[in-house]
Amino acid sequence: MRRELALHTDKYQINMMYAHWVNGTHKRKAVFEAYFRKLPFGNGFAVFAGLERIAQYIRDLRFTEDDIRYLSEQEENYAPAFLEELLQFHFKGNIHAMKEGALVFPDEPLVRVEGTIMEAQLVETAILNFMNYQTLIATKASRIKQVAPNDILLEFGTRRAQEADAAVWGARAAYIGGFHATSNMLAGRMFGIPTKGTHAHSWVQSFSSEQEAFDAYAKVLPDGVTLLVDTFDTLRSGVPHAINTAKKLEAAGKKMNAIRLDSGDLAYLSIQARKMLDEAGLDYVKIVASNDLDENTIMDLKLQGAAIDTWGVGTQLITAADQPSLGGVYKLVEIESATGEMIPTIKISSNPEKVSTPGKKDVFRIVGTNGKAMADYISSPDEAAPRNGARIKLFNPLHPYLRKNVDKYEALPMLEPIFVNGFQVYSLPPLEEIRRYHEQQLDLFWPEYLRKLNPEVYRVSLSEQVWNRKQQLIAEHMQLDLE
Amino acid sequence: MRRELALHTDKYQINMMYAHWVNGTHKRKAVFEAYFRKLPFGNGFAVFAGLERIAQYIRDLRFTEDDIRYLSEQEENYAPAFLEELLQFHFKGNIHAMKEGALVFPDEPLVRVEGTIMEAQLVETAILNFMNYQTLIATKASRIKQVAPNDILLEFGTRRAQEADAAVWGARAAYIGGFHATSNMLAGRMFGIPTKGTHAHSWVQSFSSEQEAFDAYAKVLPDGVTLLVDTFDTLRSGVPHAINTAKKLEAAGKKMNAIRLDSGDLAYLSIQARKMLDEAGLDYVKIVASNDLDENTIMDLKLQGAAIDTWGVGTQLITAADQPSLGGVYKLVEIESATGEMIPTIKISSNPEKVSTPGKKDVFRIVGTNGKAMADYISSPDEAAPRNGARIKLFNPLHPYLRKNVDKYEALPMLEPIFVNGFQVYSLPPLEEIRRYHEQQLDLFWPEYLRKLNPEVYRVSLSEQVWNRKQQLIAEHMQLDLE
Repeated sequence: MRRELALHTDKYQINMMYAHWVNGTHKRKAVFEAYFRKLPFGNGFAVFAGLERIAQYIRDLRFTEDDIRYLSEQEENYAPAFLEELLQFHFKGNIHAMKEGALVFPDEPLVRVEGTIMEAQLVETAILNFMNYQTLIATKASRIKQVAPNDILLEFGTRRAQEADAAVWGARAAYIGGFHATSNMLAGRMFGIPTKGTHAHSWVQSFSSEQEAFDAYAKVLPDGVTLLVDTFDTLRSGVPHAINTAKKLEAAGKKMNAIRLDSGDLAYLSIQARKMLDEAGLDYVKIVASNDLDENTIMDLKLQGAAIDTWGVGTQLITAADQPSLGGVYKLVEIESATGEMIPTIKISSNPEKVSTPGKKDVFRIVGTNGKAMADYISSPDEAAPRNGARIKLFNPLHPYLRKNVDKYEALPMLEPIFVNGFQVYSLPPLEEIRRYHEQQLDLFWPEYLRKLNPEVYRVSLSEQVWNRKQQLIAEHMQLDLE
Repeated sequence: MRRELALHTDKYQINMMYAHWVNGTHKRKAVFEAYFRKLPFGNGFAVFAGLERIAQYIRDLRFTEDDIRYLSEQEENYAPAFLEELLQFHFKGNIHAMKEGALVFPDEPLVRVEGTIMEAQLVETAILNFMNYQTLIATKASRIKQVAPNDILLEFGTRRAQEADAAVWGARAAYIGGFHATSNMLAGRMFGIPTKGTHAHSWVQSFSSEQEAFDAYAKVLPDGVTLLVDTFDTLRSGVPHAINTAKKLEAAGKKMNAIRLDSGDLAYLSIQARKMLDEAGLDYVKIVASNDLDENTIMDLKLQGAAIDTWGVGTQLITAADQPSLGGVYKLVEIESATGEMIPTIKISSNPEKVSTPGKKDVFRIVGTNGKAMADYISSPDEAAPRNGARIKLFNPLHPYLRKNVDKYEALPMLEPIFVNGFQVYSLPPLEEIRRYHEQQLDLFWPEYLRKLNPEVYRVSLSEQVWNRKQQLIAEHMQLDLE
């Protein structure tokens, strides 16, 4: 289902496009970079996601007649010739981006857009909207995966997701981050994610007894059935009734898959239920738990010896409840001058971390001879790319005394060409491949960068050229605008 | 653009539908009610929203051939005759709901679905997904409105929203809650919400000087232009340049609308900028502020005397950052027995607040002779509806010693019929009317229920019949399942 999203943009984009058009500067080339400044959740890394959605959006980006009619009614009184130009619009620029599943870090370009200022401005809002949310959820999922690396993780958040797109694209991001399945059937159909489901309390309530409800459910879905045992009383009613049903299934040559706990003290209840199942000879029946879980509760439950095999994670994952937004921004780094040169640009801020880094940039992951990532290295496309044997200085712009020269390494280019002159040149990988790529990315990093609490800070270095250009522009602006 | 959302549901709904179908119980009548148990943000009320989206979803609810093919490939091996039945499916039940914009409270039905267990189960997930998010955002918006009742409020959150639907439906919910405009053009087109926009830092960066950038922008959009003054230095560069531009506009007989502050200390900067503008004779130029604002920062800035006329609110509103989900649930309250009677059902929980209230219910708002709401009153459709002169007992089930008899009141029925036998009988009001209805709803309540911090608790009373039925079912289940 094609979505008409050309107007899924902020009004100021349309206004700036129009102002450039009237001003005759709308065909000037511009380079924008999207990045975030701070990792979410106190995590040591983020997991890039959103590219498939961005590619789809860019490919389909057209204004409809209805869109144009709507724009013609705005108080800005856009000139008819401008609106006519919008009707013919399609994206003709270049986009580079990280691959989905990549580990990414603050202040490095994740998506780089080159095009006319008009087209590059239009796409800002939607790119940030998709990238910010999906990267946030993939990161949260990967973080949850760190505390339960050998368990089954199910994404159960649809009813608490922030509307429909968040549910389906969030389910996809969770799968990239290492979850095994989702309950959302639309996400299953759209992306081929495995889907899982148990039953609700209402199933039990719609029968005259819990036993009858369990038996009926197991009869219809004998393979892999999971019974929810907390409708009335978990240990005194639910588990004993589920054991009865499992025994009846055994008599028919079938095996019940699991019971599900959805309330109460999950540590205590799972340990007791495990004992009851084991004593009944049902050691193969697994225990699924759900109820407002996140990486902290899962870790605590595991520390308390909870006998839980599968975790159904809902609200906390799908909304990234402890930090529900990634503050990704999209900044102009180069603009064509009236004479056709590309000029690096800067955004100054009284908050030093918010000063942008001028100029178009590439990102390399510098991997040592031990196969582990040492730092990321940001350089300009007009300087020599780092390559094994060519000494580079790993250099932290916020703490320049931390520096280190390296010459034996592999430099992995991180930004892939996605669109060239408006044509998609990147073939979007199957979701399974993205998920595997994420796992491989994790293997590149020492565990200290990956831990949940107070991880070691992975360094993003600027080449001396990029750093010097930034200092020079700061100095120039301080003179030009402040004297 | 019609969205195919039949599969926007949890797998367990399909599995329960299938199990009922095999079991021959799928045509049993069922009544479900959607409600939340706890108000978000410590607020004294919530603002119901999501009905337009729910109605659209119900009207369009069909499985496509692709959906059916996808279902036929699932590990559950659904019977072909079941899938054939899904292909013919459309919703034929009844839905009652609160009107959008209504003030709503914990434990009262907001959406009531009556239909076959099969159809009522299918729609659970999407109804909760829409209702939970939109109600959350309308509530947050109304809360922000409380602290700035006379200022202009702009919804600027799209880039930080949790994907596209959240951006557009969130913009609509914010408008219902009292915001004046959105930056999202798609929300503007879809719902007729006024749209507003200024310009980005990139506009300034794409010119060789800030002055040139401001002059060019004002020249193209002389009416209502707002200039962003913090690209380089707000008070030393941005405001003086904006003043120059305003003077040039004056010379051409035009008036600049506003300047916008987007970083730094908004209290200090706005007070200084106000002085500079006033001293330049530009007392009509307004000040717009943005930068991670919410009701708390806005209140604090106002207390500090910030000279801000218009608030651009983004991330904190569109994600409801301090509590990004409303925990709305959907519970079975009645089910048809094998002999055709409607039987009230209950969900017991070790957590007393989570025990559901059995039976189909109506909601009345009891308004005293002073025109102010006294309490909500929940009764069964098979008892006499409350009416002026008929004594009712206002009675709090959690604290039954707090009770009060009233006989002079107006009882406003809160649940509107939306669908009857699958036909939409409710005509969705224009958005402006919903927004006005919300304002009228606020007028019904004493200020103590509306304040931001520690509001007085507005009571939701159960009729004695509803309360007695609940106690009786709890007692029965304690015997039936636990002996």
